[in-house]
Amino acid sequence: MQQSIKLGIVGYGNLGKGVRKAIGQNPDMELVAVFTRRTPSELASGSEGVKFEHISAAEQYKGIIDVMILCGGSATDLPEQTPDLARMFNTVDSFDTHAKIPEFFEAVNAVAKKAETLSVISTGWDPGLFSLNRLLAEAILPQGTDYTFWGKGVSQGHSDAIRRVPGVKGGVQYTVPVQEVIDRIRSGETPELSTREKHLRECFVVAEEGADQEAIRETIVNMPNYFSDYDTTVTFISEEQLKFEHEGMPHGGFVIRSGITGDNTKQIVEFGLKLESNPEFTASVLVAYARAAVRLRKDGITGAKTVFDIPLGHLSPKSAEQLRKELL
Amino acid sequence: MQQSIKLGIVGYGNLGKGVRKAIGQNPDMELVAVFTRRTPSELASGSEGVKFEHISAAEQYKGIIDVMILCGGSATDLPEQTPDLARMFNTVDSFDTHAKIPEFFEAVNAVAKKAETLSVISTGWDPGLFSLNRLLAEAILPQGTDYTFWGKGVSQGHSDAIRRVPGVKGGVQYTVPVQEVIDRIRSGETPELSTREKHLRECFVVAEEGADQEAIRETIVNMPNYFSDYDTTVTFISEEQLKFEHEGMPHGGFVIRSGITGDNTKQIVEFGLKLESNPEFTASVLVAYARAAVRLRKDGITGAKTVFDIPLGHLSPKSAEQLRKELL
Repeated sequence: MQQSIKLGIVGYGNLGKGVRKAIGQNPDMELVAVFTRRTPSELASGSEGVKFEHISAAEQYKGIIDVMILCGGSATDLPEQTPDLARMFNTVDSFDTHAKIPEFFEAVNAVAKKAETLSVISTGWDPGLFSLNRLLAEAILPQGTDYTFWGKGVSQGHSDAIRRVPGVKGGVQYTVPVQEVIDRIRSGETPELSTREKHLRECFVVAEEGADQEAIRETIVNMPNYFSDYDTTVTFISEEQLKFEHEGMPHGGFVIRSGITGDNTKQIVEFGLKLESNPEFTASVLVAYARAAVRLRKDGITGAKTVFDIPLGHLSPKSAEQLRKELL
Repeated sequence: MQQSIKLGIVGYGNLGKGVRKAIGQNPDMELVAVFTRRTPSELASGSEGVKFEHISAAEQYKGIIDVMILCGGSATDLPEQTPDLARMFNTVDSFDTHAKIPEFFEAVNAVAKKAETLSVISTGWDPGLFSLNRLLAEAILPQGTDYTFWGKGVSQGHSDAIRRVPGVKGGVQYTVPVQEVIDRIRSGETPELSTREKHLRECFVVAEEGADQEAIRETIVNMPNYFSDYDTTVTFISEEQLKFEHEGMPHGGFVIRSGITGDNTKQIVEFGLKLESNPEFTASVLVAYARAAVRLRKDGITGAKTVFDIPLGHLSPKSAEQLRKELL
């Protein structure tokens, strides 16, 4: 029997909780402790059997935890936490600010190379599985057009933007891909699409008593960057409806490449996700890549790595021999 | 400017021709020669600018060709050709007899390790891209059910079986996935499915003059292994219809995993292909893996490898830095 992989979780929001659940589904893994900036004892309720530690205690786990799974946000948490923890541990994170990935990679790589640790950065589903599929389809079909659609799913950033509008008590925003456009691409068309043609934005809003609903609607649909480039609908609902009908965090989407081989022969490659819980699925991806991190480090590899650098066989608990026999 | 990758093609049927076309789409690649067991000069028509050689001349290209792409069949060609050529060259093949992959791997690995060459075996789309997606989805969602559907597409084996029936002059068989079942899986159901429930078989048959069509139909639909476990339709058509309406080699299919995370949260991962030409698409996959073979060998890696062992970044002509910036 092989020794189990010992994991730590840093940050205990929706993603961190998802990682705890995902570890429970993998018999070759063990959760050692959850690290938090909050008061550890306050987190215990509902998570019986889990050890909570303050983040400042992490150093004591050096040599005990194989991989730290970092569940903070990309705006302010991960740019600090990943380099900081890579000094002591192998890490996996879901840093998802696409434009800043190159500098994030460089910063983490420098630390991890020096500390002789391995850090898998920017995994999850986008960046992550969607990136893998963009690369795969482009490498196989060099002549072609790529489309990425997101949704139907909750966008945290857009939901926050709604909630900042005066007179709004609560709300949620769904990004919805335009089905008619997806159908055209699947049937072999390669249209050039504006932002407005690819996605709709559906807002469900709870207004404060006496607030001017028409003014709220106008403010939302005309908000630059967030809504003005899209066809946006605003539906007013009650607080109860918000609570009971919109509590989930579904998401998903598609990466489609429509390419040409030979003499104008059409070839279409598509990857899609339909997720009832975005954070739980992202967590499951992080946990599979934690397994890969341990294996790569055992092979003597150090530094920052992305999904592009890692053979998929490393994600599975099965041996190479078993994979060839059962899954090839 | 980097030196171009120098490729040879062994075997010049539909797949070999597809490889020639795919190489033409990749500016970092060059076709050195096509090797054949036939008389080389007979193949030149329609392939101007291509150098044809008898397979016995392959040895003279040792040190000149970086990778040989083997385009023979899995029944008798590849079990001989891959080990034979791996003695002198890096190779890529599409060996697709699933049950015999383990022994094929061992045979090729022994030769390639000794010769210090690298062989990517069993790539294409199934085995190949479908295998990658089965592994990926299973590693991320350990609790779940896997479904692979093929089609709509031409099955060469089943078409051959039809043509062996007495009274049949020509014919073609399409494997058709049952749409209603796919819709159920996409909506979150995880049914247990019999062979008959997953795929239909549609046969288009040209009967010889005066042949008993009802007898032909009976023979086909009751043929064990090939048709008796399926709902099979037989449609009689003219020779002209066969020639003009059924000349293409479309194929495709889906790999779907329906899994559960956390507290019964449904998560669905799907990969699909819709191909106007099966051999041209398979050829494009082989060519991308030829690029990976060159890079792995440059890293000092030898022996037999499968799609599970190869980081996807190696398939792309772009640098790791460029990939992180553009595709992650």
